[in-house]
Amino acid sequence: MSVIAASSGIAANPARALVCRNCGAEYPLIAQNACYECFAPVEVGYDQAALRAVTRADIEAGPHNIWRYAPLLPAGQDPASRVTVNPGMTPLIKADALAAELGLKTLWVKDDSANPTHSFKDRVVSVALTAAKGLGFSRFACASTGNLANSVAAHGARAGVPSIVFIPYDLEQNKVVTSAVYQGQVVAIEGSYDDVNRLCQELTETDEFEETAFVNVNVRPYYAEGSKTLGYEVAEQLGWRLPQQVVIPMASGELLTKIDKAFTELVEIGLVDDTPWRVFGAQSAGCNPIATALHAGTDQITPVKPTGIAKSLNIGDPAAGPYALEAVRRTGGWMDYVTDDEIRDGIQLLARTTGVFAETAGGVTVAVLKKLVEAGKLDRDAETVVYNTGEGLKTIDAVSAQVGPTHTVRPSLKAAREAGLLG
Amino acid sequence: MSVIAASSGIAANPARALVCRNCGAEYPLIAQNACYECFAPVEVGYDQAALRAVTRADIEAGPHNIWRYAPLLPAGQDPASRVTVNPGMTPLIKADALAAELGLKTLWVKDDSANPTHSFKDRVVSVALTAAKGLGFSRFACASTGNLANSVAAHGARAGVPSIVFIPYDLEQNKVVTSAVYQGQVVAIEGSYDDVNRLCQELTETDEFEETAFVNVNVRPYYAEGSKTLGYEVAEQLGWRLPQQVVIPMASGELLTKIDKAFTELVEIGLVDDTPWRVFGAQSAGCNPIATALHAGTDQITPVKPTGIAKSLNIGDPAAGPYALEAVRRTGGWMDYVTDDEIRDGIQLLARTTGVFAETAGGVTVAVLKKLVEAGKLDRDAETVVYNTGEGLKTIDAVSAQVGPTHTVRPSLKAAREAGLLG
Repeated sequence: MSVIAASSGIAANPARALVCRNCGAEYPLIAQNACYECFAPVEVGYDQAALRAVTRADIEAGPHNIWRYAPLLPAGQDPASRVTVNPGMTPLIKADALAAELGLKTLWVKDDSANPTHSFKDRVVSVALTAAKGLGFSRFACASTGNLANSVAAHGARAGVPSIVFIPYDLEQNKVVTSAVYQGQVVAIEGSYDDVNRLCQELTETDEFEETAFVNVNVRPYYAEGSKTLGYEVAEQLGWRLPQQVVIPMASGELLTKIDKAFTELVEIGLVDDTPWRVFGAQSAGCNPIATALHAGTDQITPVKPTGIAKSLNIGDPAAGPYALEAVRRTGGWMDYVTDDEIRDGIQLLARTTGVFAETAGGVTVAVLKKLVEAGKLDRDAETVVYNTGEGLKTIDAVSAQVGPTHTVRPSLKAAREAGLLG
Repeated sequence: MSVIAASSGIAANPARALVCRNCGAEYPLIAQNACYECFAPVEVGYDQAALRAVTRADIEAGPHNIWRYAPLLPAGQDPASRVTVNPGMTPLIKADALAAELGLKTLWVKDDSANPTHSFKDRVVSVALTAAKGLGFSRFACASTGNLANSVAAHGARAGVPSIVFIPYDLEQNKVVTSAVYQGQVVAIEGSYDDVNRLCQELTETDEFEETAFVNVNVRPYYAEGSKTLGYEVAEQLGWRLPQQVVIPMASGELLTKIDKAFTELVEIGLVDDTPWRVFGAQSAGCNPIATALHAGTDQITPVKPTGIAKSLNIGDPAAGPYALEAVRRTGGWMDYVTDDEIRDGIQLLARTTGVFAETAGGVTVAVLKKLVEAGKLDRDAETVVYNTGEGLKTIDAVSAQVGPTHTVRPSLKAAREAGLLG
């Protein structure tokens, strides 16, 4: 909330309780990620009066990072409390050339590769670890497909807190090195991400990990709220209004649900006008359980064994899948999925037309954007935002066989002429 | 200057002339990089009255990128004129853990890996290409050790202008792919950077390249001014004051001279108090011609044939070397150089203590910082800023043999226990 506690100089926290997403049961703001009544996930509920007290001016007076939205988050109101690399306020790029090629009227790219460890995960990790520190945890951990491990390890190094990150053994090498360079513990698990995630859930229940915060397990409700900032920022960067269509990559499906939650909140608390938005989800053909459920018209998500190059999206048993389906159906959106070749083309299309080099997840999202336009699912005249959540350098192998020098020549004018460089 | 032309809505340009750095001869603001009288390099000279009219408030009211300093730059005063990916305002990180390890009182890391293509080159390219567009050029080019090519190619893609970048054939693959993905022309030259540079100088004199702006050849004076923003930002981020010591990597030596020029200007125009600063330069043992000249007490820089892993600094015949020597001697600083092993250690030291993953150039600078502290060249009690100019993901091979998973285990609690993860 925007009210500053007079005695302490610390803004109060607008979070009120953990609330079950299924039955509505409420719990105190502790380290808990499932409902004791019905076992569904819990999420952070807010004091609506506190949220409604927040003004655009409050936010605009804040720092040029996610903490400008601290009045709408469950942690970090006191700057001294933050465990953070200060992510956020990444560019919203007008993509006229890409729009023209796809036949869209107005298109923006929200480029979250600009975060400190070059993915949107810095947002969720900063919120989760700030909450975790407040809850007394003394070690940071995660189950990760790569980007999350990069971010947790970097946050640990910055804060001087030990970290232990768990990743599948077959990750892209660039993501492994970018976790290990910070010199915390990096545990490669001989299995899929879903195996990693299961093991981490078991570890949280051991005595030895009692003081370890797994950002996406035992403090997951706080973690998930960090994704709301990707909705807030787009609205603020558009001049405090909502886009009409958003295209979002899906792994667990949580990012999509939280951008939708951010738009809903902004309307409810009066920071933007109540204009309709439609939410679209993107997966790869190698891991498409949520999109498949939508296409089949069911609420039941059948887990898959992921394959393909979009490793950061390879969650075969997506925890927030049902909520992503709900958001897409409620707003009149759609989901689709694309092949590895389409992903590679998507990376190159985005790079050539915007100067943004995305990782495979961004290739997925741009390729699905293209597919949705061609299928008539997206309104060509409606203002659209496509989210790039990660950096091309981390998945360089996806395109390194496709692109390279166009010429190789000896260092002389004569050689340059013979190579055709002089017309 | 901060005065807005009433008729056009476009702020006037404070640049006055190109001025010879040797004899002081003056030329109009065209595409020219050497003096016709004495063949020394020319640089941008300003209308001092225009600069003095600029206030802190003018700058603070600007955008959160380098263009807030447009009143102090030779191009880009009109936002519509900019050819840019909007770099700048990268983090200045208080590095307390690194300071403690080195025995320094106050240390900051200026982290320019946060720029859109993840090096400081986005700053110089944005200024150069904005000037180039104004001068009527229709194609963008450069001679590059990697980062510059990444930036020119990305700027070309963003602006929809053809680009052609020239690189040594033996660059790090990540830097090659990150240039080629934007799908301009990428020319690999079978030679060193100095060979590439010579060829590009020859190409600028051909009819076929008459409309091609080589950012660091024929429009180099504008390009070089972009580096001033790395000085302005540090001063502004410190609350409008100068640091006492700065440690800066050297390739051509130009970056160092322009940060020094920025500090000089800020004092002259009254934006900061006139407090002393000392400039320190960092090279690798594989390419140390400027530091070697300093150590030998000479003004003569003997070109070298570069070797070693710090490829982005491998300029054996550094154009701005004499001016870097002058700045270091005038301010009472020093220069040093470090081995490849020290560079690798520097990358890991920075990562472990700050959460910043630097490329080899950053490893050079941190390792030289350490060496200068240990040698007593840096005052341990003086506030120090070390510049990280690039991103670790681009030179991943430098550390990929040193760091990796600390454990590899099967996905079970039993296996985790056997691996010692449960104490």
